[in-house]
Amino acid sequence: MYSILKATGSTEEEAAFVSESLIQANLYGVDSHGLANLKPYISAIESGKIKCGAQIKVLQESASTALIDGNWGFGQISCKKATEIAINKAEKNMVGVVGISHCNHIGRLGLYAEMIAKKDMIGLIYAASDPSVAPHGGMKPMFGTNPFSYGFPAGKEQPIIIDFATAAVAEGKIRAALAGGEKIPLGWIIDKNGNPTTNPADLYEPPLPPIQIKILGAQLPIGGYKGFGLAIAVDIIGGALTNTGCDGDVPEFANGTMVQALNIEAFCPLEEYRKRVDKLIRDVKSAPIAPGVKEIMLPGEPETRTREERLKSGIPVPEITWKATLDIAKKYGVDVEGILSK
Amino acid sequence: MYSILKATGSTEEEAAFVSESLIQANLYGVDSHGLANLKPYISAIESGKIKCGAQIKVLQESASTALIDGNWGFGQISCKKATEIAINKAEKNMVGVVGISHCNHIGRLGLYAEMIAKKDMIGLIYAASDPSVAPHGGMKPMFGTNPFSYGFPAGKEQPIIIDFATAAVAEGKIRAALAGGEKIPLGWIIDKNGNPTTNPADLYEPPLPPIQIKILGAQLPIGGYKGFGLAIAVDIIGGALTNTGCDGDVPEFANGTMVQALNIEAFCPLEEYRKRVDKLIRDVKSAPIAPGVKEIMLPGEPETRTREERLKSGIPVPEITWKATLDIAKKYGVDVEGILSK
Repeated sequence: MYSILKATGSTEEEAAFVSESLIQANLYGVDSHGLANLKPYISAIESGKIKCGAQIKVLQESASTALIDGNWGFGQISCKKATEIAINKAEKNMVGVVGISHCNHIGRLGLYAEMIAKKDMIGLIYAASDPSVAPHGGMKPMFGTNPFSYGFPAGKEQPIIIDFATAAVAEGKIRAALAGGEKIPLGWIIDKNGNPTTNPADLYEPPLPPIQIKILGAQLPIGGYKGFGLAIAVDIIGGALTNTGCDGDVPEFANGTMVQALNIEAFCPLEEYRKRVDKLIRDVKSAPIAPGVKEIMLPGEPETRTREERLKSGIPVPEITWKATLDIAKKYGVDVEGILSK
Repeated sequence: MYSILKATGSTEEEAAFVSESLIQANLYGVDSHGLANLKPYISAIESGKIKCGAQIKVLQESASTALIDGNWGFGQISCKKATEIAINKAEKNMVGVVGISHCNHIGRLGLYAEMIAKKDMIGLIYAASDPSVAPHGGMKPMFGTNPFSYGFPAGKEQPIIIDFATAAVAEGKIRAALAGGEKIPLGWIIDKNGNPTTNPADLYEPPLPPIQIKILGAQLPIGGYKGFGLAIAVDIIGGALTNTGCDGDVPEFANGTMVQALNIEAFCPLEEYRKRVDKLIRDVKSAPIAPGVKEIMLPGEPETRTREERLKSGIPVPEITWKATLDIAKKYGVDVEGILSK
């Protein structure tokens, strides 16, 4: 991946960090944000949507806030920079809130929340995205899946990484059901006429994925009006404040991104915080489980476990993704087979 | 209400603001946070849980953050103070994040989010509460309904006030179903054995409400692991950082509260922000509606509409609440009938 990105004109930093971001997502089992993104990224480079080597500029700044211009470089690089600035401000001034204009797809949000948690701070990331979710009671997609992510450091336990879309489910799960010929539960999507449906195909305009991914029906927000409220919050904070757009104006591929780092010591000694969160984690893990449940998993725990497994067993890559990768490699004269055989 | 609170030893400010807070909640239709709270508040004053005239102290402070000690005064007064400090810091330093230790029940969160939105800033309130919600997959209540609230100012349109519990529904709705002899949908609660149930009585330990409100089963988080994640976020930010407690340690009646105000102009000109949010509101209101839906309501809109209706028609008060109010009035020698006849 690194070699392909380099061959398409990416800088050293871009090729290294973007490929790390995609591989990390695959390791965590979030395959929708992994290698499957390489082809769309390369297409975006080719069409000029992603500008390799873009310079990031600080547009305005205060002791605890900043707005930076990603200049349509890789979203991962813009968001890494925003995260570093937020951490730096929170180290000096207890809180850092940094927005990004002209920001491409940042990938898995948990990556940045984790970066902040590793610095013993609380991270919060909002990312407004292009429309696929209908407002509660509506039938037209007007909001992105608008994910957000919290990162909470712990003491001896693993940090808690909360990372989810404000849609009932990620679009990738609907596509997976379609590919597997399965029905989906009511409440995930509506068809083009606004009716509830269990047929994943009803979300898309033919030709169906994987040929094209074009939304015809709409995804539904998680928990009705509650998820609708969250989608609006992400849309305004991530999209409106950063000049990215909101309410259906977010361009395909862009993320209206806001990153917040909060210094724990602004409120309580770090050691006390760590003890409390460790206790919370242990109490949850040892709590009585409901009938039919194997164990209680903390947010981020299934992903961490998948990572451990995949570090041993490898990352399963679907045929179609692998073929696309080889095609790009060939196009850019990268000897993937040669690299793999080493 | 004002007179009763005064008679129980509340200061002028306490009696005025707390009664305003309860009446506003009733006007907005959030009756669980209205007059129904007067009796528990008075009992808390009598038992020493709420200390009338408590002095609020700033425990630690930076340019953009503060931790204040509510000293177990009325939660409403503590949270009003925290909100004012957060607004003040955000005016000067673009962002203000203020936590409250020793904070009693703050009432309806939207009140404070609205205070911030009225100052043309974005408000965010977290309030950890005493346990009634099981972790996803668990069967023992370990988290509060842990509500949070966002306030977004608009331009010519009404501000967007998002205010909800991270439980599937507010506990008040389950109690209302019980009172009305109705079943509740699956997914709201589990019984004492961790099994899904549609019987609202299964949530409570007999004698059932309104005689006592003691949780025997558990409420469920909204949307499974997503709501569980939100409950944890509120627990740590609201509860752990403010020394209130988290993970089941939040005392009955207390709220682990964190208030954040974000200055819009740290990111974009206020006028542009206003135009975007007005457009979002109008687009949502005029969007095509799903079959069977009358209209799309923005978060906070049903409450605003109830307020308009109730300002004309009055607030319906259940017999039991009214009787409780009269009993307290009598106990403290307040001539409610006399006040009402004026």
